[in-house]
Amino acid sequence: MAGNTFGQLFKVTTFGESHGGMVGAVVDGCPPGLEISEGEIQKELDRRRPGQSSISTPRKEEDVVKIMSGVFDGKTTGTPILLLAVNKDVRSEDYQEMKGLFRPGHADFTYEAKYGFRDWRGSGRASARETLARVAAGAIAKKYLSQKFGITILSFVEQIGVIKANIDLNKVTTQDIESSIVRCPDEDTAKKMLSLIETARDEGDSIGGVILGAIKNVPAGLGEPVFDKLNADLGKAMLSINAVKGFEIGSGFAGAKMKGSQHNDAFYIENNLIKTRTNYAGGVLGGISNGQTIYFRVAFKPVSTIKKEQNTVSVDTKDITLKANGRHDCCVLPRAVPIVDAMAALVIIDHYLRHKAQNL
Amino acid sequence: MAGNTFGQLFKVTTFGESHGGMVGAVVDGCPPGLEISEGEIQKELDRRRPGQSSISTPRKEEDVVKIMSGVFDGKTTGTPILLLAVNKDVRSEDYQEMKGLFRPGHADFTYEAKYGFRDWRGSGRASARETLARVAAGAIAKKYLSQKFGITILSFVEQIGVIKANIDLNKVTTQDIESSIVRCPDEDTAKKMLSLIETARDEGDSIGGVILGAIKNVPAGLGEPVFDKLNADLGKAMLSINAVKGFEIGSGFAGAKMKGSQHNDAFYIENNLIKTRTNYAGGVLGGISNGQTIYFRVAFKPVSTIKKEQNTVSVDTKDITLKANGRHDCCVLPRAVPIVDAMAALVIIDHYLRHKAQNL
Amino acid sequence: MAGNTFGQLFKVTTFGESHGGMVGAVVDGCPPGLEISEGEIQKELDRRRPGQSSISTPRKEEDVVKIMSGVFDGKTTGTPILLLAVNKDVRSEDYQEMKGLFRPGHADFTYEAKYGFRDWRGSGRASARETLARVAAGAIAKKYLSQKFGITILSFVEQIGVIKANIDLNKVTTQDIESSIVRCPDEDTAKKMLSLIETARDEGDSIGGVILGAIKNVPAGLGEPVFDKLNADLGKAMLSINAVKGFEIGSGFAGAKMKGSQHNDAFYIENNLIKTRTNYAGGVLGGISNGQTIYFRVAFKPVSTIKKEQNTVSVDTKDITLKANGRHDCCVLPRAVPIVDAMAALVIIDHYLRHKAQNL
Amino acid sequence: MAGNTFGQLFKVTTFGESHGGMVGAVVDGCPPGLEISEGEIQKELDRRRPGQSSISTPRKEEDVVKIMSGVFDGKTTGTPILLLAVNKDVRSEDYQEMKGLFRPGHADFTYEAKYGFRDWRGSGRASARETLARVAAGAIAKKYLSQKFGITILSFVEQIGVIKANIDLNKVTTQDIESSIVRCPDEDTAKKMLSLIETARDEGDSIGGVILGAIKNVPAGLGEPVFDKLNADLGKAMLSINAVKGFEIGSGFAGAKMKGSQHNDAFYIENNLIKTRTNYAGGVLGGISNGQTIYFRVAFKPVSTIKKEQNTVSVDTKDITLKANGRHDCCVLPRAVPIVDAMAALVIIDHYLRHKAQNL
Repeated sequence: MAGNTFGQLFKVTTFGESHGGMVGAVVDGCPPGLEISEGEIQKELDRRRPGQSSISTPRKEEDVVKIMSGVFDGKTTGTPILLLAVNKDVRSEDYQEMKGLFRPGHADFTYEAKYGFRDWRGSGRASARETLARVAAGAIAKKYLSQKFGITILSFVEQIGVIKANIDLNKVTTQDIESSIVRCPDEDTAKKMLSLIETARDEGDSIGGVILGAIKNVPAGLGEPVFDKLNADLGKAMLSINAVKGFEIGSGFAGAKMKGSQHNDAFYIENNLIKTRTNYAGGVLGGISNGQTIYFRVAFKPVSTIKKEQNTVSVDTKDITLKANGRHDCCVLPRAVPIVDAMAALVIIDHYLRHKAQNL
Repeated sequence: MAGNTFGQLFKVTTFGESHGGMVGAVVDGCPPGLEISEGEIQKELDRRRPGQSSISTPRKEEDVVKIMSGVFDGKTTGTPILLLAVNKDVRSEDYQEMKGLFRPGHADFTYEAKYGFRDWRGSGRASARETLARVAAGAIAKKYLSQKFGITILSFVEQIGVIKANIDLNKVTTQDIESSIVRCPDEDTAKKMLSLIETARDEGDSIGGVILGAIKNVPAGLGEPVFDKLNADLGKAMLSINAVKGFEIGSGFAGAKMKGSQHNDAFYIENNLIKTRTNYAGGVLGGISNGQTIYFRVAFKPVSTIKKEQNTVSVDTKDITLKANGRHDCCVLPRAVPIVDAMAALVIIDHYLRHKAQNL
Repeated sequence: MAGNTFGQLFKVTTFGESHGGMVGAVVDGCPPGLEISEGEIQKELDRRRPGQSSISTPRKEEDVVKIMSGVFDGKTTGTPILLLAVNKDVRSEDYQEMKGLFRPGHADFTYEAKYGFRDWRGSGRASARETLARVAAGAIAKKYLSQKFGITILSFVEQIGVIKANIDLNKVTTQDIESSIVRCPDEDTAKKMLSLIETARDEGDSIGGVILGAIKNVPAGLGEPVFDKLNADLGKAMLSINAVKGFEIGSGFAGAKMKGSQHNDAFYIENNLIKTRTNYAGGVLGGISNGQTIYFRVAFKPVSTIKKEQNTVSVDTKDITLKANGRHDCCVLPRAVPIVDAMAALVIIDHYLRHKAQNL
Repeated sequence: MAGNTFGQLFKVTTFGESHGGMVGAVVDGCPPGLEISEGEIQKELDRRRPGQSSISTPRKEEDVVKIMSGVFDGKTTGTPILLLAVNKDVRSEDYQEMKGLFRPGHADFTYEAKYGFRDWRGSGRASARETLARVAAGAIAKKYLSQKFGITILSFVEQIGVIKANIDLNKVTTQDIESSIVRCPDEDTAKKMLSLIETARDEGDSIGGVILGAIKNVPAGLGEPVFDKLNADLGKAMLSINAVKGFEIGSGFAGAKMKGSQHNDAFYIENNLIKTRTNYAGGVLGGISNGQTIYFRVAFKPVSTIKKEQNTVSVDTKDITLKANGRHDCCVLPRAVPIVDAMAALVIIDHYLRHKAQNL
């Protein structure tokens, strides 16, 4: 109810502030008998970890996650899984001056409006450090989906600023994505993106972009009609990630310009299976998966923390100017790729369990 | 869990199929003491009603809604409000031939995949007739928000196909919107849109578009951080509407191209109030309202029902061709405007009650 | 959230006031493909119906229920099932004088305290007429459980006032229960109970009692550990029925007097199955069914409406006296038996679906 | 959904197994601004702590709880509160022989039936050690209720075996309760109870009993009608505690023997306030608090772990005998008093927030 839980059957509750003792998650509702190790979770976390490349924040959290309950003899028991990561490289003094002011683009003002006061150290609960817990929980979901259905989730950076890649979803691989520090699987475009990010960094500025998420091998029939359409829950999942301003599935906003005769994906039979010739739908019809690849785009605004001087106001309502010091990314997209993966996994597993409850 | 309920504290459960006995909603959690009449609800429904203009489906439902419980002496009692509309102009024979095939772009195939069989009459539960119930429930929410805070919700058609209006959100009025059958408040653009819609209709085709939603006077502090961000719940609400493929708030996908120094909305003080000079955020920071106008865009694909011949498959997996007969809109956007209004109202009232529970 | 919904996966939302337009329920989450007819539901309703015998209220509702959505070709579709019963024999004038006072033992005062005003006609939402909707929804659950697992639910009146029957759970049958207007399967005791009820009626008084509920053939493994133990959810279900003041499972309050060496049900092997020699546990260990018969007791207070003169207060806080007129039962237990059955069925089906989601 | 969360607005999710790394809770939905310290929580935990007296288990957990998130500058921030207690005195070797068998009265068999395998060390998740987390979370709720309304919760041991105290609820104090190691405020009866417990202990047996819970100063109007009646939620809360077999509110099972003219609590006016002369209702009418003291009884079966030899079966379905070794209480009631307090606090705060959301 207070918004810290995601999912209805595979429930993930995250906790922790940026500069508090620890961040983590409780995963409740994971089916029993799934083999899972800290190492498998760590692998996903390392993709999100700060300091992993020249374009990510120098904050040096190791982000080591521990499984503290719900796993016995290497397998999930069906009881709550507690995932914990201790906060180590905490330099709250960097934020001392933030205590008395509201940073533009940040949640300082709205948290104060909502709660009457706030933990001002490193954005507190509004910090993107919370997404560490999502990635850890998502790693469990990814493992389950992969083992159960061979579902793979492939997200990558499609656009940085005005530079956009043109990627064939049928050919992209995890290796292509991970081989680039920008996480754009097209090498030439990745170089241009990198140069754009470095320019922004050198200017003390930041830059936005778009992540494309693709989910392959989802069986037809997942998603609840009416309010909990699969696309609606994917949209909510992505829009809940810090800095996200837009979501589209399949044709998306481009679809708004089309005619029905173009947009309708014609059905046909191949090897006795029902397929579609095109996939403007993005793998979802009437809110329910149709067996084709699900793909969607997620728009990220530029990071709010910049080194340029900005006009803003103080907590005691005076006009002031601000120049930031804290360590930060000037472009979050490369590190946001595993977060998009994780949220996609959490949506699919939850809808799979819901479908199973009522229909299988 | 089965996806027919929206909201956590102001809970709306809809029921009913297109050609069944009735459609409607149970509204549970509406605060007691709100004056509400069937007439007020009917006014909103009339904006969604089929047959209201030359460009909407000739299906002639009167869509008369009755309040059957939860209101006493003209006021809500705090107990569940039952809203009912009987289905009258039902011509299931139009759909007899649909029984044995899967229409492209429709949910026929996915419902069959999910449930094993389906009510094939007029799309059954997947019919947009379900949105009648949303508009009725939303009318109660709109009344509450208006009376309590002076919140107004103003949605309008911003784009049809490639034709896009440029509207000043500060000046648009309900009258401007309602005076056009396209529900675009810019008269010149509305004419061009109308002509585009008529062309699509005459070709037996359909056309998509974009609705812009604006919510004014929302107090700062609504929205839950982390998973239930106000923008995430607005996104889910809109993406749950039939035919919606995209959602963006504030700068949206355009924001992905910007730099932080451009995108950050500078705070300033005016009359002792904290305001922002620009509003790229779209009225939400860190998932919580900041007191500025909330605005967002919703992309609709073209209607799937067209009169042109299409390739598709039969239930017994044979390749066939299809030419539709049923009555339908060739562009849903004008009639979708009150649906967007309703869903926006349901999100805001739910978050207001959630905020109230925990903070006021 | 406002308390009108029961269940997490098989969700029943009831609506309606005693003297409003209609009462009924939306059942959301019923698996598709279940054959169900209005006749099957009606059979359960007839067991709850007023006026069915000499000891039930003369209010003559026919209580005819209609299925208005969610069923197609005689089978559930997986979409919400709307069950409606129109209120007919409404004599609100009987309640005119109740408008200005708070009846002892009734919810008049607490509804006014909670909501600021109330629908005073026939107890409004607090009327036991709401349980009609539970019985209708429960009939669907009973059908499913019977068909799927051969689960049978057998509740009966075990005690009226101080008269208590001693029934062998292994031998009791539906016929034995239904052959008595008291719904006590022991003929001799039933006669004594009847006489006690008639005495109370003739005195213008009322009398309480205990219903024993038994659920047979529940497979081992249903129930969630910790907060949603099967016994905890059964307890909540029963305590939510009007006039219920107590619940116990298995040994219950008598178990508090026992020693562990007596109470522990010894396991043994029979035909390769694990069984228990005694059943003090009542079929539940650690909140999870163990395959033995689940049995529990539900204590009902005497009906609050009596014809004797009582001291009470008026809405404008004056001491007054009251003598009731309205039609009422002087002992609700015989008519409450199908309500206990229904609530038990709703608990078991919900836990079955929850178990299925996570474990099968 | 998997049953590890209690509450709808003040949500407590517990995690952890008896012999795993740690046990604890996430409290989500606690209003911001409440002053709370680890010391205040510890005080409640010390009442539940093993080894606190001659009649409790010698397992020597210190049960030190740490607040790891959600509290800043000594006040709750409105974000999730993580409460952690590390498991220290873990002697899993005591349980090695339990691995292969199902203990009578325990959840070994039903966990195995539900999940396919189980963490057999010290009862795993089914261990009463889980209630530590409830007491810690309940301490926060108690603080809030006390500060906001002056609500006090006073539970005590009313009965051990057949020995029953007769306590005047108006006079009982925390001091009276805490001054006895049995937690029965009547000194003479407490002595007899102690002697009965010691006898059971010396026989290698165990003994059950009843706790009476009383909640004072609850304002009228809390509780949701129909399914989430305050008594129904209190019942569920209590029945979710390990070893509980029965719950009654107010008159309870004794009320089943009464007539309406006796049971109806007459209203009267005192100092312009509406009160009742008797309180058979137990402070709740129609599921909503009426301002009188809420009181209820909770029946505990005797502890299942005894030192006497018992017949049981092995995991590979053979008949065997068992003699327990593990450290245990032979009567849980004295240590269960703070658990009853905690669960009562969690119910009341949750209903207060729900009421606030919809009505204040």
